[in-house]
Amino acid sequence: MKTKTATFFDLVRPDLLEVEARMLFSQYQHHPSLNEAIEHLLSSGGKRIRPILVLLTSGMLGANHEESINLAASIEMLHTATLVHDDLIDGSMLRRGIPTLNTKWSPGATVLTGDYIFARAAHLASTIGSKELMKIYARTLMTIVNGEITQLFNAQIIDPHQEYFDRIYAKTASLFEMSTEGAAILSGSKSEVIDAMKSFGYHIGIAFQIVDDVLDFISDQEHVGKPVTNDLRQGLITLPTLYYLEANPEGDKLIEKLRQREMDDQGIERLIDAIRSSGAIDQTLEQADRFVSAGEEMLDGMPDTPEKEALHELAHYVIKRTV
Amino acid sequence: MKTKTATFFDLVRPDLLEVEARMLFSQYQHHPSLNEAIEHLLSSGGKRIRPILVLLTSGMLGANHEESINLAASIEMLHTATLVHDDLIDGSMLRRGIPTLNTKWSPGATVLTGDYIFARAAHLASTIGSKELMKIYARTLMTIVNGEITQLFNAQIIDPHQEYFDRIYAKTASLFEMSTEGAAILSGSKSEVIDAMKSFGYHIGIAFQIVDDVLDFISDQEHVGKPVTNDLRQGLITLPTLYYLEANPEGDKLIEKLRQREMDDQGIERLIDAIRSSGAIDQTLEQADRFVSAGEEMLDGMPDTPEKEALHELAHYVIKRTV
Repeated sequence: MKTKTATFFDLVRPDLLEVEARMLFSQYQHHPSLNEAIEHLLSSGGKRIRPILVLLTSGMLGANHEESINLAASIEMLHTATLVHDDLIDGSMLRRGIPTLNTKWSPGATVLTGDYIFARAAHLASTIGSKELMKIYARTLMTIVNGEITQLFNAQIIDPHQEYFDRIYAKTASLFEMSTEGAAILSGSKSEVIDAMKSFGYHIGIAFQIVDDVLDFISDQEHVGKPVTNDLRQGLITLPTLYYLEANPEGDKLIEKLRQREMDDQGIERLIDAIRSSGAIDQTLEQADRFVSAGEEMLDGMPDTPEKEALHELAHYVIKRTV
Repeated sequence: MKTKTATFFDLVRPDLLEVEARMLFSQYQHHPSLNEAIEHLLSSGGKRIRPILVLLTSGMLGANHEESINLAASIEMLHTATLVHDDLIDGSMLRRGIPTLNTKWSPGATVLTGDYIFARAAHLASTIGSKELMKIYARTLMTIVNGEITQLFNAQIIDPHQEYFDRIYAKTASLFEMSTEGAAILSGSKSEVIDAMKSFGYHIGIAFQIVDDVLDFISDQEHVGKPVTNDLRQGLITLPTLYYLEANPEGDKLIEKLRQREMDDQGIERLIDAIRSSGAIDQTLEQADRFVSAGEEMLDGMPDTPEKEALHELAHYVIKRTV
């Protein structure tokens, strides 16, 4: 039996193969280890949800095929580059079930490989030749990196909800937003359409990260490809924890204690169990649901095409997925 | 008494102030530590030779002023970003006489700050809106990073001269080349002019790095702002060493021994003294001279302007400089 997930994927499968090939191909002769690294990083697969967003939006709005492939490949490479540096900084050992680059290579080689992938991503984007796109591209990279720096410096937080949404915007939604906005720009659509598709990407991206943060609580390691409930153990407070602690009169104090890594392991384990069995998980998923619905509203005026249907399916997949 | 150096500098001084301001300014509200880091990095001054190349070429060929400022600022920021990652990887403590970012910040924060400066550089370049320029920009970044990776992996070398020139092209000449080529592109010049100015930048860049490598042998720490004769102690073989060892029947073996860091400290110190007092230093400077002359040939057909004169002066400064 075919699932809904398979349907939206089927529509872009041939294009996705082209995207993969574009990511692996370089016209330049560079150090062979760089290509090996890129092959290793891409071999893990990944959901390719950002390229799919580009391809479906492009298909729906009639953007140039070649440019769409380049944009999709470029965005996935930019995403890959940020993951290489992230995993190095966090000391992560696994990503999507395969060893991270930093477990195989020296820190120096890992930094440089990330830089190289940034450059390859920028080169792919530059071949499209859209001034507007390059600006958004650079701005999105600034947003992503600024989010990581802000998280790293871990300053006192005034509003934990605001901090959470700012963080997941920088980490995830900004690149989803760029995928749909970029594809709409390529199609030469008028600005209402571009703005609406940007908003669709934003809402789906926020929902995607909220669900990711829920999966960190409820999945087992085998499914997610990395150890779970890592967030809280690393002092990272996500929406389930915020909802759970809001009901607690000591909530604010506990949040600051968690952020400053002042809670002992036993306390954290007890808290994780409590959150898992509380209503906070469902409350969080309902919030994700609202973001998906708001995103789908943006598709209302779009051309009735199979791609539009697929974008609706993708939106539902984002909240129904278990990995 | 005014020196020749001051003359070419005077011509672009007001524009350079604009370039500095452009590098420091961002329209986006990002983490305050990022601006602090950029201010710290720019406070060291530096020779700003890449922006000067952009400004003089732009002035000579009549490129748009605003676009030239953006290109100059963008190239200097790209250069700064690569230095941040370089210093981290090499564990360097000083750059241009001031502490490197990695002595003040964690490795993670240093990686991310480099990434952020890359993004700011790309954003500045994207505001110019030239498809051609963005391609060259991304390609140059690939070249620079590929050069660093190749050096880091330190494979067996077939031809040490080829390896040396490939390395200094990636490290220095590629960005000099982009400065003059980019400015020529902005001016809308025909392709002979663009090619000639690209070649000018290439030759001056190679000469600049050769002289840098000589200064590593003959300067004292106070002048260069970092400990000298570091190259050889780190197994990095530059042109003076190649010329010196060429006269030695054991040269090839010694080169490989140095590269593999198998020579003891005493042996290295003896070698450094021998190179310093040999004819290899002059032989190297003569080679730099030849590159400068070849570069100057490229200015022959250019419009007779004060900027053209200044480019000649800059070319001479590159070999006469002591810091």
